[in-house]
Amino acid sequence: MNKIPSISLRGKNVPKSAIRKLIPFAKDAEKRGIKVHKLNIGQPDVETPQEFWDAVKTFKEKVLAYSPSEGRPEFIDAMIKYYAGHNINFKSDEIITIVGGIEGVLLTLFAVANPGDEIITPEPYYSNYVGITAMTDLKFVPITTTAEKGYHLPSAAEIESKITDKTRAILIASPGNPTGCVYTKEEMEMVAGIAIKHGIFVISDEVYREFAYNGEPVTSIMHIKGVEQHAILIDSMSKRYSACGARLGCIISHNKDFIDSVRAYATVRLSAPTLDQIGIAACINTPQSYFDKVKEDYKNRRDIVVDTMNGIKDVICPVPGGAFYAMVKIKGVDTEEFAKWLLTDFSFESETVLVAPGAGFYATPGLGRDEIRIAYIMNTAVMKRSMTVLAKAIEQYRKTH
Amino acid sequence: MNKIPSISLRGKNVPKSAIRKLIPFAKDAEKRGIKVHKLNIGQPDVETPQEFWDAVKTFKEKVLAYSPSEGRPEFIDAMIKYYAGHNINFKSDEIITIVGGIEGVLLTLFAVANPGDEIITPEPYYSNYVGITAMTDLKFVPITTTAEKGYHLPSAAEIESKITDKTRAILIASPGNPTGCVYTKEEMEMVAGIAIKHGIFVISDEVYREFAYNGEPVTSIMHIKGVEQHAILIDSMSKRYSACGARLGCIISHNKDFIDSVRAYATVRLSAPTLDQIGIAACINTPQSYFDKVKEDYKNRRDIVVDTMNGIKDVICPVPGGAFYAMVKIKGVDTEEFAKWLLTDFSFESETVLVAPGAGFYATPGLGRDEIRIAYIMNTAVMKRSMTVLAKAIEQYRKTH
Repeated sequence: MNKIPSISLRGKNVPKSAIRKLIPFAKDAEKRGIKVHKLNIGQPDVETPQEFWDAVKTFKEKVLAYSPSEGRPEFIDAMIKYYAGHNINFKSDEIITIVGGIEGVLLTLFAVANPGDEIITPEPYYSNYVGITAMTDLKFVPITTTAEKGYHLPSAAEIESKITDKTRAILIASPGNPTGCVYTKEEMEMVAGIAIKHGIFVISDEVYREFAYNGEPVTSIMHIKGVEQHAILIDSMSKRYSACGARLGCIISHNKDFIDSVRAYATVRLSAPTLDQIGIAACINTPQSYFDKVKEDYKNRRDIVVDTMNGIKDVICPVPGGAFYAMVKIKGVDTEEFAKWLLTDFSFESETVLVAPGAGFYATPGLGRDEIRIAYIMNTAVMKRSMTVLAKAIEQYRKTH
Repeated sequence: MNKIPSISLRGKNVPKSAIRKLIPFAKDAEKRGIKVHKLNIGQPDVETPQEFWDAVKTFKEKVLAYSPSEGRPEFIDAMIKYYAGHNINFKSDEIITIVGGIEGVLLTLFAVANPGDEIITPEPYYSNYVGITAMTDLKFVPITTTAEKGYHLPSAAEIESKITDKTRAILIASPGNPTGCVYTKEEMEMVAGIAIKHGIFVISDEVYREFAYNGEPVTSIMHIKGVEQHAILIDSMSKRYSACGARLGCIISHNKDFIDSVRAYATVRLSAPTLDQIGIAACINTPQSYFDKVKEDYKNRRDIVVDTMNGIKDVICPVPGGAFYAMVKIKGVDTEEFAKWLLTDFSFESETVLVAPGAGFYATPGLGRDEIRIAYIMNTAVMKRSMTVLAKAIEQYRKTH
C-alpha cells in the first residue's frame, strides 16, 4: 500500500492571508465586467526612480554573480550615506543586506529568540509578522491599540504588564502598517526605556520612514540615546524607492553579537539579489524632488480617504501620520462579510473596491471585526472614485444587513 | 543598570561556514603579494546568457512591482517549457518560485516536518543544509557515503535502518555538491521505493541537472513512476544559467497539500525578485550551443583536477559524473590544518589555493578530516596552474608534517 505522506502540522497551520481568500471573488467580479479598485495591498503605482533603471541597464559585468552575504560594497556604502542624511550613523560591519524587510524580521527573530520565547508587538500589526513568528516558533504577544486613540501606544505600565521571563523583544513599526500611526519621540523613548529596564531588544521596522505627512521628522530607534545595544533597525527599499520587486532591505544594529548571528544566518541563504543592489545603490542619487512629489501625492490621496470616510456617520478613520494605509472603523459592520459582499453582491456604476478586513491585523480574538484597511496606493482620481464607491457601499450594506 | 540583551542560543549556534574562517587568512596572503586561486565556492566564471541581459535591459515596466508569491506568469511558463524538454511535466499550480534553491529547502522543510522531526540525507552533503535544518528545528540524520565507492548510495537496508517514526523525508542531491556524484536510475528508484514503503517524502535537489559529463541523462525524481505524491523537486537558476546573483529557483510537486503549504509560506515572504524572473524567463531561448560549450568547458576542467590529483600517491579523487565539484581524499593529512597552512605558510612561485576542508560536509564526527572539496569553476589555464600548485603543496605538507 502506498501511504501518501501528510504535510507537517505547522505546514497546515501556516497563517493564511485573509486577503488571499478574497482574490477569487475579485476575479469573478471582473469576469462579470465590474471594475475592482484594489486597495488591499501596498503595491504603489509610483514609478521606480530613473536612477535605478539606468544603473541596471548599464551594468557591465558579464556574470551575474553571488553578492557577499552581507551585501555588495556599493550597496552598503549607499546605505551608510543615506542614513547619515537621517542622522543615523553606523559602521560597514553593522549592516546586513536582506531579501526584503520580511526576511529581516525572520533572521532577526532567529537571532534574538529561541523556540517558545515571546515577542511583544502592538496590534493591529503587519499581518506577515504572524507567519514569521510561526516560522521561528515564537509566541506573539499583542498590545492592543485603538482607532479612538489613533493607534498610539498605551502606557509603559500596560506594555510592561505583558513582559514575562520569556520576552525577548518588542517589535514596533513606525510609521505603521496597517495604522499609518507615527510614534512620537516620547513614545519611542518609552519603548527604548522599557527595553533597557528589562534587558530586551527593540526591533524597529522603519520601512515607511520617507512617508510622513505632518512635517515632523520620523524618530528612529537609532536616534534614542542609551538603547544602542538593544536597538535593531529593519528597513526595506520596497516602499522608499517604489521597488517592491527588488526584494531588498537591511538590518542595522550596534550590537555585535546580534549582527554576527544575523550574518551567519545570511551566509546560510548565501546572498540577496545582485542586480537589484546595483540599482538601489544608484538611488542614493535620486533627487529630493522625487521624494517631495511622492509625499505630496500620498498626502493628497490620504486626505481623500480620511475626508470621505470621516464624513460618514459612525465611521472613524484616524488621520494616518504616515505610510500609505488607513484603518477605517465601520461601526456595526462585520467587515469580513462586508469585504466579500463588496465583490459578490455590490457594485456602483459597475465598480467596486477590494479592501482588507481588519481582523487579520489583530491577534486578540474578536478585535478588528468592524475595521478595514485601505491602502491609498492609487492616483487621486482613482482614490476619489474608490472612496465614492466605498461610501455608497457602506450606506447600502447598512440598509440591507 | 543597563542589562544588554543576549542573543538566542540558536542564534549563537547557527552553523558557521568552515570556509568563512579561512577568508581572513586568504586576505592576509593576498596582502603579502600571493595570488590565491579561490577554489572554495561554486561561483563560476561562465557568462550569464545574453538572453538574460537583453530581457532585463529592455524591460519596459516603470514600476518594479511585487511578483505574485508563486512567481510571474512568464517565469512559470518558461519553466513548464524547460522541464517538458527534460520529460518532466506539471501544471502551472504545481510550481512555486523561490529565492534560490536554498529558500526552497527552507520552505519545503517547514511544509513537511515539525520541530524535532528527522530528515535523512547522504553525507558528504551541501553544507548549507545544516543551517536550514537548524532554522527549521529538525534533526539531520546522515547516511555515510565514501570516496572509495564514488559517494554512491549504500543499500536500501542501510538507508532504511536510519528511518524512525520521526523521519519525514529523505533529502538527496544528484548531481551532488560536494561530491559530483550522479545517482543512477536504479539509485533514484531505490530512494523512491523507500519513500513509498515508509510513507515519507523525497526532496530531490537537482540544481546541477545540466552538468553531467558521462553522456547519460540525469534521472530526476520526477521521472520515477509511483512516487508522484512523495516527490518534491527543488531547482535553482544559479548554476543552470550562471546567474547565482539572480536568487531564483523553483519547487515542483504533484502533492497538492504540500504545494498549497509552500504557497502559503511563500505568501508570507511576499515575492521572489521580479527583474530576475524577467531575465531568467528569457533564458528559455538560450541556444543549446551555450550549454554544450559550458559542459565541454567543465568536463575539461574536471579532467584536469581528477588527473592531477589521482596522479599523487595516496590521494583519491573519484571522477565526479556531474556538477562542478570534486572531493579529494588526501590520506594522512588533516585538511582543516592543511587548508589554513596553504594560506599562512605555503606558496609556490607566489601562488596558492583556497580549498574547502572536508569535515564541514559531514555530520558524523571525525569524517571528512582527510578530504577537501575543489570547485572547478575557473578556466582550464587557471585550473591547470591551481592543480600544479596544490600538488606541490600536498608534497611539501607531507614532508613537513
